[in-house]
Amino acid sequence: MKSLKHRLYQIIFEADTPSGKLFDIILIGLILLSIGVVMIESDDTLSPRINRAMVIMEWCLTALFTMEYLLRIVIADRPRKYIFSFFGIIDLLAILPTYLGLIIGGTQMLIVVRALRLVRVFRVLKLTRYVKEATALWSALVLSRNKISVFLFVVLILVTIMGTVMYIVENPFNEGFKSIPQSVYWAIVTLTTVGYGDIAPVTVFGKFLAGFIMITGYAIIAVPTGIVTSELVRENRRQGSVRACKACSEEGHDADAAYCKRCGEPLE
Amino acid sequence: MKSLKHRLYQIIFEADTPSGKLFDIILIGLILLSIGVVMIESDDTLSPRINRAMVIMEWCLTALFTMEYLLRIVIADRPRKYIFSFFGIIDLLAILPTYLGLIIGGTQMLIVVRALRLVRVFRVLKLTRYVKEATALWSALVLSRNKISVFLFVVLILVTIMGTVMYIVENPFNEGFKSIPQSVYWAIVTLTTVGYGDIAPVTVFGKFLAGFIMITGYAIIAVPTGIVTSELVRENRRQGSVRACKACSEEGHDADAAYCKRCGEPLE
Amino acid sequence: MKSLKHRLYQIIFEADTPSGKLFDIILIGLILLSIGVVMIESDDTLSPRINRAMVIMEWCLTALFTMEYLLRIVIADRPRKYIFSFFGIIDLLAILPTYLGLIIGGTQMLIVVRALRLVRVFRVLKLTRYVKEATALWSALVLSRNKISVFLFVVLILVTIMGTVMYIVENPFNEGFKSIPQSVYWAIVTLTTVGYGDIAPVTVFGKFLAGFIMITGYAIIAVPTGIVTSELVRENRRQGSVRACKACSEEGHDADAAYCKRCGEPLE
Amino acid sequence: MKSLKHRLYQIIFEADTPSGKLFDIILIGLILLSIGVVMIESDDTLSPRINRAMVIMEWCLTALFTMEYLLRIVIADRPRKYIFSFFGIIDLLAILPTYLGLIIGGTQMLIVVRALRLVRVFRVLKLTRYVKEATALWSALVLSRNKISVFLFVVLILVTIMGTVMYIVENPFNEGFKSIPQSVYWAIVTLTTVGYGDIAPVTVFGKFLAGFIMITGYAIIAVPTGIVTSELVRENRRQGSVRACKACSEEGHDADAAYCKRCGEPLE
Repeated sequence: MKSLKHRLYQIIFEADTPSGKLFDIILIGLILLSIGVVMIESDDTLSPRINRAMVIMEWCLTALFTMEYLLRIVIADRPRKYIFSFFGIIDLLAILPTYLGLIIGGTQMLIVVRALRLVRVFRVLKLTRYVKEATALWSALVLSRNKISVFLFVVLILVTIMGTVMYIVENPFNEGFKSIPQSVYWAIVTLTTVGYGDIAPVTVFGKFLAGFIMITGYAIIAVPTGIVTSELVRENRRQGSVRACKACSEEGHDADAAYCKRCGEPLE
Repeated sequence: MKSLKHRLYQIIFEADTPSGKLFDIILIGLILLSIGVVMIESDDTLSPRINRAMVIMEWCLTALFTMEYLLRIVIADRPRKYIFSFFGIIDLLAILPTYLGLIIGGTQMLIVVRALRLVRVFRVLKLTRYVKEATALWSALVLSRNKISVFLFVVLILVTIMGTVMYIVENPFNEGFKSIPQSVYWAIVTLTTVGYGDIAPVTVFGKFLAGFIMITGYAIIAVPTGIVTSELVRENRRQGSVRACKACSEEGHDADAAYCKRCGEPLE
Repeated sequence: MKSLKHRLYQIIFEADTPSGKLFDIILIGLILLSIGVVMIESDDTLSPRINRAMVIMEWCLTALFTMEYLLRIVIADRPRKYIFSFFGIIDLLAILPTYLGLIIGGTQMLIVVRALRLVRVFRVLKLTRYVKEATALWSALVLSRNKISVFLFVVLILVTIMGTVMYIVENPFNEGFKSIPQSVYWAIVTLTTVGYGDIAPVTVFGKFLAGFIMITGYAIIAVPTGIVTSELVRENRRQGSVRACKACSEEGHDADAAYCKRCGEPLE
Repeated sequence: MKSLKHRLYQIIFEADTPSGKLFDIILIGLILLSIGVVMIESDDTLSPRINRAMVIMEWCLTALFTMEYLLRIVIADRPRKYIFSFFGIIDLLAILPTYLGLIIGGTQMLIVVRALRLVRVFRVLKLTRYVKEATALWSALVLSRNKISVFLFVVLILVTIMGTVMYIVENPFNEGFKSIPQSVYWAIVTLTTVGYGDIAPVTVFGKFLAGFIMITGYAIIAVPTGIVTSELVRENRRQGSVRACKACSEEGHDADAAYCKRCGEPLE
């Protein structure tokens, strides 16, 4: 009995055995299918027949994912640890919305909860062989976290002030700048160089200011890029030194280092 | 008496004591509230009742900020130094507009002065724990100041020439390119990749030129990014290498190095 | 006879002799001409006379390219190797569509196959003297392949979730967000800062969320840039340091260094 | 007499003396004024009176610049060298258009030549104190010239193929994609993230392809940035070593170099 549990554990939780790999690939296929079903369902112009087929398929997939979730709890060595782990919570959130739709009812709300199911895409990450690269990227982002926070804070202040100034300049002549929040929205659209064009300055001075904001945005886009890049360059340099000290096993020495920077023993 | 002044100084000017921290958090809350009030007030479709409530709230907040400003002057060790400091001027500018609205009158002008009040968001910066990161970013920007000035100057010349050429090409067939300044505005919108679409070329040659301008913009956006990034990379390297080995004067040691990587002598 | 084959080989396959160079330049001119012909042909507003001229020119060019292709097979030392090489396949694909148009018929399909002929532009690459630079760029891209895959995967998940949330918020008030796939399309248009403006949020909450998505896009555009840049910086450093000092094994010498910067011994 | 010529040379060609500086500042003011005049003149909605004033001012400024140009030729040590120098040609091009307007006549043509006068803005560059920074930027761009050429070539092939594919997909349902060149224009607008929105896909498959093109554009914008940045980082590193070898005066040694990389003598 214990050996069955162990084999199931290998299939469901691990991806090293052929059957474990197959299980994960099928699971990802079903998740992608369920996302496709939600996407097709969202189209209001569908015939009732197709819509009903989608609803049935959604229920079947939810049933399958529910069984899988319960199986995971039964098989896990420490069920509580799995339930409160990152993937445990995602797995639960992926099946909850369909059931909640029954209790709460009301089409409007039902649509809201469907969105959360898309988060199940994250489960696919389990399979990725790019964990090392993802970790390097993540650590570079974490290291530049504070710098990016400062940058975003400055950007928020900038768009608030720019939006207000544009509101004062454009409001009397332009329906698009009807309130300060709307003008701040315009400033974000412009500074990030998205530029929908649903709101655009019409006065000469407004256009002059807008041009100034655009060039500012063009120049300061350099800042987040610089932050992340310099962090990645540093990360690369750190990784680039695979030599380990024989005495203390310290890694991360510079390419031109002759002695261990931690214990002072000569490096090879 | 002097101890009361000292305690008030700690509360109002510093953020090390619990009461000083609380004071700053409440202050930031009130500033955000007052920005919200100005934003809501700007919406013309509001009922007169809500509008009046906003005006009253604005006056209350201005009164509070005025008291705070006067208190700061009274409590500061050298009042003159505070008044002419960066935050002193911002504090004054944050309360002035509401009073100026009384004297000057005229709705139009009143709206203009409200905008300046948003600058009080800068006061929030006092609380930030990201001063070190902000300083690093700032010094990288200051060091790349000249390079960015040269770049912006070249961009301004480029958009002037590109705008004029497009004016010549498009003007007879396109109402959007009605004058050279308007065409220069279009060139800025295009080169910065904002692309509102309120003005767009219609002739074949105009579209050909526009495509050329876009690819130019795409290529030269690399320049400011390169400037700031290379400065940040240098900054990073500098931070990592302030220590020099006493024995061999080797610099450029990692932050976690205990021994010189070249001669093996212990670092301080 | 063999010497004729060898001379033709030099002219057609190589670009070292004057006649070989001339052949390649004429070939590139003809390829550009044939692309121009396809482009002009695609304009429906052309007079039948010009259209017929274009069709004739297209057939002449196809005949020329066919002769060239056959000649290449005859002359190549190992014809099979050429036929299945990268350029052999491109050369075949460049002449096939016109013949296929005869067999399959039907205007609609004919247009599809024309597109493949544009790939013949790749043949021009043969002439480029920038092979070394292209290789450096390519190897930097290949080295950052995994990091960019992880990034694109995260972006795809982001736009799916953001698109769904915007669908829930905007759908009841905005015809643009008529289904989840359409909303995901909008999220891609916004996150990449393209911003057509054919779909734009109209509700206050939708605009707030859109602003959030834009600033996110603005911040994460830094990531691919950082990846490629750090790889190129490393590439640069590697190119500059292929030589190692024989005496002390120091690496990382400048390309113009004649002596070891550490021990002073001459470098090779 | 010679001393007068020398003094005039100092005033007109150099900017070291107070009067030389004043001359250059006045000159830049006049150039900016003349650009303003051309810009105002381009507005068709102006009253004839203002238009005439602009024409007169334009002639006065042209007369002044002509005198200045002649004076420069007279005063220069080697007039021929000045005439054929970069600034000599720009100075001539800056006055020619107004005279050409008399001979050729025809409003349409006259507008064309006006554009060239804007190039006189480049004269301002003479005054800039940012020559060193501009040189560093310029040399980084020159060094990355080949890489950027390769990149732009690949981008051009990409937009040609993408534009053709989109033409095939969208043409039957969308007036915007009326010909292949138009579709290539759309591809450029999209890939560079400008996104006017005057042409946008309407079919589901077209939107899917467009999303793919946008994400591609988002990822490859990293390439030119990476090229310029890595070149600037290398430039910075080179500049960072101000030590010169006592024996051979070679500069540009690494920070950790102990011996001259050119002649092998020990560095201080």
